[in-house]
Amino acid sequence: MAFAAPLPLRCGAVLRDYTLVYETYGTLNADRSNAVLVCHALNASHHVAGIYEGDAKSVGWWDNLIGPGQPLDTDRFFVIGVNNPGSCFGSTGPTHINPATQQPWGADFPVVTVEDWVDAQARLCDALGIAQLAAVIGGSLGGMQALCWATRYPQRLRHCIAIATAPNLSAQNIAFNEVARRAIVTDPDFHDGHYLACGTVPKRGLRVARMIGHITYLSDDTMDAKFGRNLRAAIGAAASLPSDAPRYTTLDIEFEIESYLRHQGDKFSEYFDANSYLLITRVLDYFDPAREHGGDLSAAFAAASAKFQLISFTTDWRFSPARSREIVKALLDNRLDVSYAEIAAPHGHDAFLLDDARYHGVLRARFERIAREMGGPGA
Amino acid sequence: MAFAAPLPLRCGAVLRDYTLVYETYGTLNADRSNAVLVCHALNASHHVAGIYEGDAKSVGWWDNLIGPGQPLDTDRFFVIGVNNPGSCFGSTGPTHINPATQQPWGADFPVVTVEDWVDAQARLCDALGIAQLAAVIGGSLGGMQALCWATRYPQRLRHCIAIATAPNLSAQNIAFNEVARRAIVTDPDFHDGHYLACGTVPKRGLRVARMIGHITYLSDDTMDAKFGRNLRAAIGAAASLPSDAPRYTTLDIEFEIESYLRHQGDKFSEYFDANSYLLITRVLDYFDPAREHGGDLSAAFAAASAKFQLISFTTDWRFSPARSREIVKALLDNRLDVSYAEIAAPHGHDAFLLDDARYHGVLRARFERIAREMGGPGA
Repeated sequence: MAFAAPLPLRCGAVLRDYTLVYETYGTLNADRSNAVLVCHALNASHHVAGIYEGDAKSVGWWDNLIGPGQPLDTDRFFVIGVNNPGSCFGSTGPTHINPATQQPWGADFPVVTVEDWVDAQARLCDALGIAQLAAVIGGSLGGMQALCWATRYPQRLRHCIAIATAPNLSAQNIAFNEVARRAIVTDPDFHDGHYLACGTVPKRGLRVARMIGHITYLSDDTMDAKFGRNLRAAIGAAASLPSDAPRYTTLDIEFEIESYLRHQGDKFSEYFDANSYLLITRVLDYFDPAREHGGDLSAAFAAASAKFQLISFTTDWRFSPARSREIVKALLDNRLDVSYAEIAAPHGHDAFLLDDARYHGVLRARFERIAREMGGPGA
Repeated sequence: MAFAAPLPLRCGAVLRDYTLVYETYGTLNADRSNAVLVCHALNASHHVAGIYEGDAKSVGWWDNLIGPGQPLDTDRFFVIGVNNPGSCFGSTGPTHINPATQQPWGADFPVVTVEDWVDAQARLCDALGIAQLAAVIGGSLGGMQALCWATRYPQRLRHCIAIATAPNLSAQNIAFNEVARRAIVTDPDFHDGHYLACGTVPKRGLRVARMIGHITYLSDDTMDAKFGRNLRAAIGAAASLPSDAPRYTTLDIEFEIESYLRHQGDKFSEYFDANSYLLITRVLDYFDPAREHGGDLSAAFAAASAKFQLISFTTDWRFSPARSREIVKALLDNRLDVSYAEIAAPHGHDAFLLDDARYHGVLRARFERIAREMGGPGA
């Protein structure tokens, strides 16, 4: 959907003539009360569920949660997935043409924030004729968007579901983002962010950035259970060695975890845009609703009126349960309707993307409650 | 000290005509019973205490622990600091000339291990006429060397002091090392490890590697206390902005933690050799005394006879207290003399380098015991 009205951004710039790519699932009901907005995190997109015809691998990133009969049941709800501006999956972003220069935006794409994304999403809802969402849901950075909706457009959502998220990034979180950014920016193929105009892609930096990110998405325990200290089975010339004999190499792969991480980095560097990575890690860094309230998170939620579901995972060390509890406390300080589930799951931050019975049970119950509250024949 | 006898390495190679740089402090007593070997970690050296004449900044890395009247009292003990082969502070390493090619070793320097280092240290002790050390002490990778002494040369040390260490690296530990190595190896200035011959240094990779490492040395809490989400004070053109106003930038420094990490990376890239970084992170990866005992750590310590002091720090998430407790259990399984102190300290892994009263109290008491056991007029 193309938007002609300029979008003013927090950084002071204005985004003109932008496009948002979105997908919808299910049917908007007669009184337009069953819409659920799904917000994506760092490297995901509008494609939240289902597969594209003829492409069996194109599974939506939250397909285990969203669909007919799923916890977020598309037989009952009208689900919207939207790609945020600055990302690289179709909505206006740094790989698109800057109308002012007729060159790709590159590093000149304006810095966007969670607030800007939520404003863009609200305009999309306007265009779809949705005055109030039944719910906004997201995990990680997606959860930050859900929380932002609750403070920025309190009358436009009834439920806010924020999973594996935080009220802001800790110094350590910012530090990991910064190392990833430095890996990208110091790649000689980055060319000050105008690599497309130079016909290059800073793949080396993207690989390292993704490897760093990936470590923080998994729990220590999951890594030990999945890879441990296993050596990678000998291949090629070394196939005659027993598989438990180290090869003693500094440059080649020795341990399975190394092989896995390199593979993750390689895959990511093939499809993700480096400037989008810089922008979206900054979206994370800048999110801090308490900042303009003198650091008082409770004050930040003073205007909120949604009903809240917070969920965290015990082994998530990126956004630990303690960070979710900070949010819960701030919401309770405002006497809001809050449920909080702390799920004992071994998978670390990535747990929010996985199919865990207790986790999905909490979400199924929440959406059944939302459906009941909507009334009507679908309830 | 130059060694003519070749040193056989675990990887199968042999190190010929190698040199070890070492420093000693205090005086070896008449019966040669008061020698303490100090083992260094990833980026340290033989210079463990004191300052070099005319260079006030050249403070030894464990100067707060070692010296006259300090917990490791050089009025009583003869302290030896030695730079390990493969490192870059004077002992034979990848920046030295490979006698076979008359070129710098570069990436052809053989892969070394904790066992090889301990063998080299034992030969140094031979040359110094020290049949038995009063103690071997080290933190982090230094602690691994102390543990290796206890299993490899059980009769040659009376006390083993292993601080903030682990019986092996977890998959997550290896993962962080691997990302750091990839940052170095994929730097175009790396030239397959023969950058010296090409007149370059892979500084970009070294910077990123150091930034990653540094995050894992500090606790989350310390980072929050020291930097939090503080913005770096505006400088230069931006000096007119209030210091709490974000600049909204993806390429420039916004948060104080970013400034700190970049500074750490820059400093490190000026003095540390990239091939040494690869080698020494591999020394860490490969250390695993249980491996040749079918994963049974208790069996690995079956031959040990030293008295052990283990110390860990509550906020160390690189080598957590749980990892030290694994070692303690294995030692107790062998009915060895073991003391274990778990110090409540906020500083993360770096705590082993800092001056904490309870931590240094434990070490002072241990060295007083060692001195008493030595007997003689110094006791």
